[in-house]
Amino acid sequence: MNTSSMLTLDLVRDAAGQISGIAHRTPVMTSRILDELCQARVFLKCENFQRIGAFKFRGAYNVISRLGVEELRRGVAAYSSGNHAQAVALAASMVGTSATILMPEDAPEMKIAATRGYGAEVEFYDRYTGDRVALGNALAEKRGLTIVPPYEHYGIMAGQGTAALELLEETGELDEILVPIGGGGLMAGSATAGKGLYPDIRMIGVEPEAGDDTKRSLEAGERVQIAVPRTIADGQGAEIPGEMTFGVNRRLVDAVALVTDAEIREAMIFAFDRLKIVLEPSGATALAAVMFRKGVEPGKRVGVILSGGNVGLQRFRDLTAPKATP
Amino acid sequence: MNTSSMLTLDLVRDAAGQISGIAHRTPVMTSRILDELCQARVFLKCENFQRIGAFKFRGAYNVISRLGVEELRRGVAAYSSGNHAQAVALAASMVGTSATILMPEDAPEMKIAATRGYGAEVEFYDRYTGDRVALGNALAEKRGLTIVPPYEHYGIMAGQGTAALELLEETGELDEILVPIGGGGLMAGSATAGKGLYPDIRMIGVEPEAGDDTKRSLEAGERVQIAVPRTIADGQGAEIPGEMTFGVNRRLVDAVALVTDAEIREAMIFAFDRLKIVLEPSGATALAAVMFRKGVEPGKRVGVILSGGNVGLQRFRDLTAPKATP
Repeated sequence: MNTSSMLTLDLVRDAAGQISGIAHRTPVMTSRILDELCQARVFLKCENFQRIGAFKFRGAYNVISRLGVEELRRGVAAYSSGNHAQAVALAASMVGTSATILMPEDAPEMKIAATRGYGAEVEFYDRYTGDRVALGNALAEKRGLTIVPPYEHYGIMAGQGTAALELLEETGELDEILVPIGGGGLMAGSATAGKGLYPDIRMIGVEPEAGDDTKRSLEAGERVQIAVPRTIADGQGAEIPGEMTFGVNRRLVDAVALVTDAEIREAMIFAFDRLKIVLEPSGATALAAVMFRKGVEPGKRVGVILSGGNVGLQRFRDLTAPKATP
Repeated sequence: MNTSSMLTLDLVRDAAGQISGIAHRTPVMTSRILDELCQARVFLKCENFQRIGAFKFRGAYNVISRLGVEELRRGVAAYSSGNHAQAVALAASMVGTSATILMPEDAPEMKIAATRGYGAEVEFYDRYTGDRVALGNALAEKRGLTIVPPYEHYGIMAGQGTAALELLEETGELDEILVPIGGGGLMAGSATAGKGLYPDIRMIGVEPEAGDDTKRSLEAGERVQIAVPRTIADGQGAEIPGEMTFGVNRRLVDAVALVTDAEIREAMIFAFDRLKIVLEPSGATALAAVMFRKGVEPGKRVGVILSGGNVGLQRFRDLTAPKATP
């Protein structure tokens, strides 16, 4: 597998060329009400409208579409119960290779169905007894499959960074960009694009309060492991930053803002009522940071990555039920 | 008040110039899943992202921004409990005039608040005893206000028609366009734009099954009054087509498709789950027609006007509750 040894603006630009005309160039929305609310000029990059409903398709397609003939003949594999699974499944089917996705036995029926719907084969493991990384690697080795990691790969990070690249192409220079951080791939790519184009831009990560592993790691100057986060932001449930992503983010991230689950819910409701768009909890954390003025300075031009919209109607109903808000 | 005596493509183009840079040029979305579902190539014009959350802003701003100094000094008035009220309120505030909106006493608190939020004064009437047209006219005469009608005005129709004009500028020629019909203003403007640009284009109206006054009127060759429609599509509750709008639509509308409330709900859920966008019931009727293949021929290039997204979280929750679907 062709892997780069550094993440650079050129690598992000190269990814943009690779996914051009395949991934959606998602719209950038603005909202008068939001601008008044946070006293800034806010530009929302709507990755909820990306293929499979989240930014993850960018990185997956960038990597999978560059595989060699032999790798494509054998197929790819991924371990994920979330958006990365669907991204790998769709990207694989688009380039004509097969995808095997390792999912926990108790993954939501809807996510299993969606992943199969994109043409992938789903294998199960017991999340309480199995180590998904070891199982995934064993499966890949046995069948000769190429593992597509969710973020520990510069091709993945470069692909995700095209979201910020497109945003800046549309808005011109911004004072800062807020980016949700889970494993750190979206941020690593976005920060590389952002600082590469505009060295003075501030890159602000956003994590759920309960899942502040990157914030703590940046403060400690090394990767810190936390307990499994209890948060509605299921796309940001990492217990420790990726080694490669943290190597990038420790250089380029200026600060990390934390948001509570209640604030994330408010942001999802604001997006529904005022922006008329659907955001999943992780997709709404950067919006929550703006709305509650965390890491946003008045009068600034602020970019926000709305990273995904795969919430499902029933879960959305549960999360926005009047009683659910503390 | 400067009123035109005919609705023409030039009048729609003139409206497009008048609202340019003021109204949003809303995005056109496509969906692979939707195309597969209805075996056609579908282009969705997202007026739920328009200012005030619906196409109504186009017509209101086109008319109000052309008023003379004396009219602007006195202010404008409208009778509406829906999107037209908010459209008139916002357009009035943008050109620096005052708006008085006559609403039923039992209008939803949220709609009253939204209308006031755009700076309008709200006056109430009893919907069971009062005739809103007579009351509105009396109020306007007493205070010297200019009434901005919801559809019986070529400037309003021309403004609404800019939605279809923008759609066709982006897609090029289409085989047909599906447009929700309430009072008929959006269709009159859209059909004028559509047939003006492409004489062979088919203009398909969409009405809720219970509110089929335009379908019946077209069949009868004259305006037919029906009982007050019982439908969730509250933006399409007209009992009789407008005189002026019907004069246009009887010439230009090729057919009217009917959709049930259950089909409208399905379309709202599809929009949420698959398109990640929020549609109000009336905003989803044309999508429902496409999804349930009413008036859509396989293999065609089909435009769909998603007319608005002002549903409110609680109402959306009620409409999409599992038990609510028959």
